[in-house]
Amino acid sequence: MTKPLGFEKPLGMRDILPESLAKQRHLERELRDCIERWGYREIMTPSLEYYDTVGAASVTLTDRMFRLLDKQGHTVVLRPDMTSPIARVVSSLYKDVPLPIRLFYQTNVFRAQEKEAGRNAEFFQTGIELIGDASVDADAEAIALAVFCLQASGVETFRIAIGHVDFVEGLLEETVADEEDRSQFRRFLYERDFVGFRQLTERLNLSAEEKKRLDALLRLRGGKGKIEEARQLTVNGRARRAVETVASLWAALEAYGVTEALLLDFNLISNMNYYTGVVFEGYAADLGSPLLGGGRYDRLLEQFGRPAPATGFAIKMDRLLQVTPALASPEKQHVLLFYTDEYRAKAFAEAQRMRREGQIVETRRVKDRTEALVWSEHAEYSVISLTEQEE
Amino acid sequence: MTKPLGFEKPLGMRDILPESLAKQRHLERELRDCIERWGYREIMTPSLEYYDTVGAASVTLTDRMFRLLDKQGHTVVLRPDMTSPIARVVSSLYKDVPLPIRLFYQTNVFRAQEKEAGRNAEFFQTGIELIGDASVDADAEAIALAVFCLQASGVETFRIAIGHVDFVEGLLEETVADEEDRSQFRRFLYERDFVGFRQLTERLNLSAEEKKRLDALLRLRGGKGKIEEARQLTVNGRARRAVETVASLWAALEAYGVTEALLLDFNLISNMNYYTGVVFEGYAADLGSPLLGGGRYDRLLEQFGRPAPATGFAIKMDRLLQVTPALASPEKQHVLLFYTDEYRAKAFAEAQRMRREGQIVETRRVKDRTEALVWSEHAEYSVISLTEQEE
Repeated sequence: MTKPLGFEKPLGMRDILPESLAKQRHLERELRDCIERWGYREIMTPSLEYYDTVGAASVTLTDRMFRLLDKQGHTVVLRPDMTSPIARVVSSLYKDVPLPIRLFYQTNVFRAQEKEAGRNAEFFQTGIELIGDASVDADAEAIALAVFCLQASGVETFRIAIGHVDFVEGLLEETVADEEDRSQFRRFLYERDFVGFRQLTERLNLSAEEKKRLDALLRLRGGKGKIEEARQLTVNGRARRAVETVASLWAALEAYGVTEALLLDFNLISNMNYYTGVVFEGYAADLGSPLLGGGRYDRLLEQFGRPAPATGFAIKMDRLLQVTPALASPEKQHVLLFYTDEYRAKAFAEAQRMRREGQIVETRRVKDRTEALVWSEHAEYSVISLTEQEE
Repeated sequence: MTKPLGFEKPLGMRDILPESLAKQRHLERELRDCIERWGYREIMTPSLEYYDTVGAASVTLTDRMFRLLDKQGHTVVLRPDMTSPIARVVSSLYKDVPLPIRLFYQTNVFRAQEKEAGRNAEFFQTGIELIGDASVDADAEAIALAVFCLQASGVETFRIAIGHVDFVEGLLEETVADEEDRSQFRRFLYERDFVGFRQLTERLNLSAEEKKRLDALLRLRGGKGKIEEARQLTVNGRARRAVETVASLWAALEAYGVTEALLLDFNLISNMNYYTGVVFEGYAADLGSPLLGGGRYDRLLEQFGRPAPATGFAIKMDRLLQVTPALASPEKQHVLLFYTDEYRAKAFAEAQRMRREGQIVETRRVKDRTEALVWSEHAEYSVISLTEQEE
């Protein structure tokens, strides 16, 4: 065979067939309608970026990026996310646009896959970035908008878990002296390995009080009441400030009327090196992985020379597709119009008339009435035949 | 500087800012609405494909493709067009789906640029493929749909030029013995260099009759009347069959009522190695390069093991953006809602109420009434202030 690869696609690459794509497009439209009402405007950035600009600033690990060399010998990457390209735009083309800036995107991003494990190496996201607002109200806006987005998509049961990176960090600073130990605790939290966390608590040389506080951290997951519990657990400083931020956040979210969809999770850990404040993740019933993730990233923009606080989130469209109801059958009527040669002009004119009325019309040439009948038997759609009359 | 590349983007890559993207999205919606009414369904294929499958089959030259090596050592390309990926799908995932198959796409494709000449290396296309119909009626459908697409986009003045690769080829076969000479004639036609074409006619050792026929070819550009002129110029065989195909095509297009937007161009040459029959290109007033290109490509599918005739076209969105009217200002009211801390809950609830009514609302926290007033002066939008009263 001259084509040893046959019909293969590169690892993690896939076709999105019409059935599935129609639903994705529908969800994209619903999300767009929702997001635009909050004043966000869509932006598109290139698929390829220099590694030294966007790649290095990205939250994605370098070895998960698709890399190539351009003709000048620079390393170029397929964009691993949209947040760092948007930070680049805000700091360059938009450097004179006053903050806050609200932008959204609906596009694909890339993550190289190591092995054949059914994971996508290219996937679609809808996301927002709110740049230039350090207040907790901006965090509230991002979270409330995330709730409205999931509602608009028709996700039946979901929760958005909210945490704050400084709470875990502050509490660990107050209780665990050794950075290596803290790092282990973080990893257990990140992996949701509470057993490992508790075993480490036992193993280390901690006071009864410290052990109690670390153990209590694991239970700080629930409704509004957890704010007071968290407050009790902190002395002052970093962790306490995080609690007060979350308290103010919750009040703002009450004003938006979205707290029923929320869950406080003071031990939520996302990517610690990237997020700098409130973080959140959206979960749907029956889906193990988060539907959306977001949070505050106040240190990214300065890497592009325009220091600014920022928050945002991204919805993973593949996962959203899994937890949303099937599309209702289209309202438009779909018609197959058969014709023989002598009725061609009539058929085309008629088809065009029906399309103008909003119907979907496929025309199909047949040699005679019998062929039209044979086709009709297997047709999924309404059938019209313009063929010679039977004698 | 630690980032020598600053804010640079790779050659030919660009950001699409909201003003421009909003118009592109609007045009994409108009085109989608139009195309779907003809029974086409949208498909998406991966950004990355193996060179040995899709890359080699593509009409794009290999050195214009972005290439990278995957971990297994295969050459991978950023898709240079959507036609060959769709041929791959029709021959693999869709191998049991009966023909004809109607598919469309709205996505980006890639062409590496050699130097900084302002040419895009990534650009968006909306296109259709009608696979499995060898009849001239399928050519007519593609061309009529192209006309309706440009109309739906709001292009004020445009023409679609129609030719047939076999007409030029057949006429050259009948008049010019040497393949090298024919190849030169083709190049002159492709480059629209009629002076060069005529000089070559003079230089070669041709009969007066042959010279006359070649010279007449250059004038075969115009309305329906050119069909008879073209017929006169042919003896029989390949060129004559092409004329009869075009005659039948024109009749079909009359039935669609689109011939006012059409132009016959019997010396139209597209990519000869790829197209196999009727070809067409769409031009708008004041735009030198074609807006859209398409034609019949009956030999592509067999490269994927499912021989089938096919036709289709692609619209270049960047060019369409240049020749369509600016977007009407949005119907939705855009409101900036200022609030001070004590009115936060009220502001968020009010903003949400207005969004539910379909308005666009941005909320902005201010420290006092004066700050709201300062902001308001520069606001592009309607302003509402929820702040403390003046004393």
